[in-house]
Parts: sequence; C-alpha cells; structure tokens
Amino acid sequence: MNLPSKLLEQAVYEIAQLPGLGRKTALGMALHLLHLPKSHTHRLAFALQQFVDGIKRCQRCHNLSDTEICHICADPKRDAQTVCVVEDIRDVLAMENTGAYRGLYQVLGGKISPMDGVGPRDLYIADLVEKVSRGAVSEIIFALSSTMEGDTTMFYLFKQLQDFPIRITTLARGVAVGDALEYADSITLGKSLTHRVPYESVLKH
Amino acid sequence: MNLPSKLLEQAVYEIAQLPGLGRKTALGMALHLLHLPKSHTHRLAFALQQFVDGIKRCQRCHNLSDTEICHICADPKRDAQTVCVVEDIRDVLAMENTGAYRGLYQVLGGKISPMDGVGPRDLYIADLVEKVSRGAVSEIIFALSSTMEGDTTMFYLFKQLQDFPIRITTLARGVAVGDALEYADSITLGKSLTHRVPYESVLKH
Repeated sequence: MNLPSKLLEQAVYEIAQLPGLGRKTALGMALHLLHLPKSHTHRLAFALQQFVDGIKRCQRCHNLSDTEICHICADPKRDAQTVCVVEDIRDVLAMENTGAYRGLYQVLGGKISPMDGVGPRDLYIADLVEKVSRGAVSEIIFALSSTMEGDTTMFYLFKQLQDFPIRITTLARGVAVGDALEYADSITLGKSLTHRVPYESVLKH
Repeated sequence: MNLPSKLLEQAVYEIAQLPGLGRKTALGMALHLLHLPKSHTHRLAFALQQFVDGIKRCQRCHNLSDTEICHICADPKRDAQTVCVVEDIRDVLAMENTGAYRGLYQVLGGKISPMDGVGPRDLYIADLVEKVSRGAVSEIIFALSSTMEGDTTMFYLFKQLQDFPIRITTLARGVAVGDALEYADSITLGKSLTHRVPYESVLKH
C-alpha cells in the first residue's frame, strides 16, 4: 500500500506504531481525523505531548501521578503497613475498584522477563526491599498476573524478602464467582481445592 | 474507570475518540507510549498536526494530495475520457492496485446517507456533472460499495447523468475469484448468473 501523499503516509506510519494497529486501521483513523474539525487533532496531539512530558511517577509507590506523591500514598487513612505489589497502574485501578483494599501499593513498572530483556534492576524492586528492611511494612501482597513472567517476578521478590519478619501473601487463585465448575480449567480448579476455605468464613463476608 | 492523573486521563480521553478504540485500549496505548522514547510521541503528534493542517484535495478529482493537482490527474498518459467514481482514497488505492485501470477518478468524499446527515450537496458531485456537461467525459464507472448508501448514491448520480451522451457503467458483482459456489450468498450468485459473460471473453483475458 503506497500512499500518494507524504503527509498521509507519515501520519499512517506513526499511528501504525501504536500497539495493535495495522496500516489499514491506521489509514482509517487518519481519514477519520479529516472528517473532524482540525482543533480535534490539535487537542489529541497536545494531550499526548503533555502526557509524556509531564507525567510523573509517585516517589513512594512509583504509580503514574501528576504530583510528586500520589493521592493514595498521600492519604493518611490508608494502612501504610500493608503493601500490594502490582505491575502497573491498570492493576492499581483494578484493585481500587474492588473497594476491598485499604493499604498502599508498590508499582514495579513491569515484570521480570528475560525474553524481553527486563531484569530485576529494570523494575522498582530495590526500594521495596529497603522499605521492608527498615521495618515500615508488616505485610506484602503479591498481586501479579499468574503467567510465567509474573511467577518469576514473585519468586524473585520472595527470595529477597523471605528473611524479614513480615507476612508475604499472594492473591487467591480459584474458580471465578459466577463460573460453572465444568468450564473451569483443571489447574484453576485444583488450586481452588487445595486452598479451600472454611464455609463459615464465606458466610461472614 | 477514574484515572488518578489528569494528564493520563486527557491522553486516554483523546485517544479513545479515535474510531474503534475504547478506553481500555486507549489506556494501554498511552502506557505503551511511556515505554518508548519521548521523541516518538513528539513525532506522532507532529505528524498528525502536519497531516490535518497540510493535506489538500486535488482540485480536479478531490483525492487527498500534497499538491494542488494529484499525480494521477497530472499524468498525461492516463485516459481523461474515463472517470471512475469512488468514495475515498482507499478505493482509489484498491483500484490502482488492480493495475487494470488507466482512467481518472472522481472522489466523492463519502456516500449519500440520510441517517448520517450526508446529502448530495456534501459530496463532490456538482463538478462531476459539470465535467460531463462540457463533454470532457465519455464513460463514467461507478465503483461504490454495494450497500444501501452506495446504491442510493449510484442511483442519484445516474439520475443526474443519464441525459448526457455518455456510457455509464458499474463494477460487475459476482462470485469472487477462487471462491467455491456453495459458499457464495444467493444474491451474489444470482447477479453472477444474470450478468454472465461469453466464455471466449474470459479466455482472452
């Protein structure tokens, strides 16, 4: 697909660099922009530049934030003794949506993945160990995806943290609420069985 | 999904305005930009602005172009007597890819669609009729999608052009090359039958 216009070609090329977009979709988006007022595209371009230039990471938890300290770390009502370890801001949002978590977070900024060249030093791990070592934390909750990279990262963190007098937990894995047993995969069902909980504790919540 | 960062929120909001993107995809794209050098986002923003500010429409065929007259209209080897009517630049690219067309184009810029508030006056139709009326054209080929809007547009154009001494044709509809008959829909197969062609003419091409 050779585009006759250099301006269009350049726009399509740059849009197609975004994840999940091919050249055809990128072309459709570029043409869509022409059907809108120019001010719309200027706003889009401005927002993207402001975002990458201005966004900060919270100095304590490394979550994306407009301020030096994010609103969660700055909230005195949160339980600073409990730290939930997540990959990025999407997982923070998912945890916050449950309404069941009142502790703080440690955003790693990724997962250990030798295939992608991401090692422990590329993640925000050092200052988590430092926080734990000065006794600021009593429980660490691993909330990472149960993929090979997630499991590797959890194992690495566990090795770093196991000698400190803290509780180290991970999210329970099991059959999702509302799911029929017959459609659950056997590994998940197996974990549900191994980590079965007293029925009275379910009745209470 | 309430994003804690205004900069991120603004970026996600603007990306999600693009067609086919929801907020989750937009958030993934915004986070992806942070993994790339900032210069990448600046290039993207610059390309989009340059595109909407600088792109022109060819004064003759209304195709997108960096110049006043597009390279197709400016090519003296093309047959100026034949004009292929298409919706937008994507259809021009598709037609050019066949390598079988040597005439010029008329890019309408859309299709008549009362549902979307697009009437004949919103399209580049008037100057097509003018070209035909001054005898500059001997054949008009309708190459519009066979949807309700495409059919409506073709019918409108036909009414405007039918009294001039020109040939008016439309793309042949039929079973695609390589397709098995049993999987063709009945309307398409019906059209293939009605517009059947002499076997010798197939042998020649």
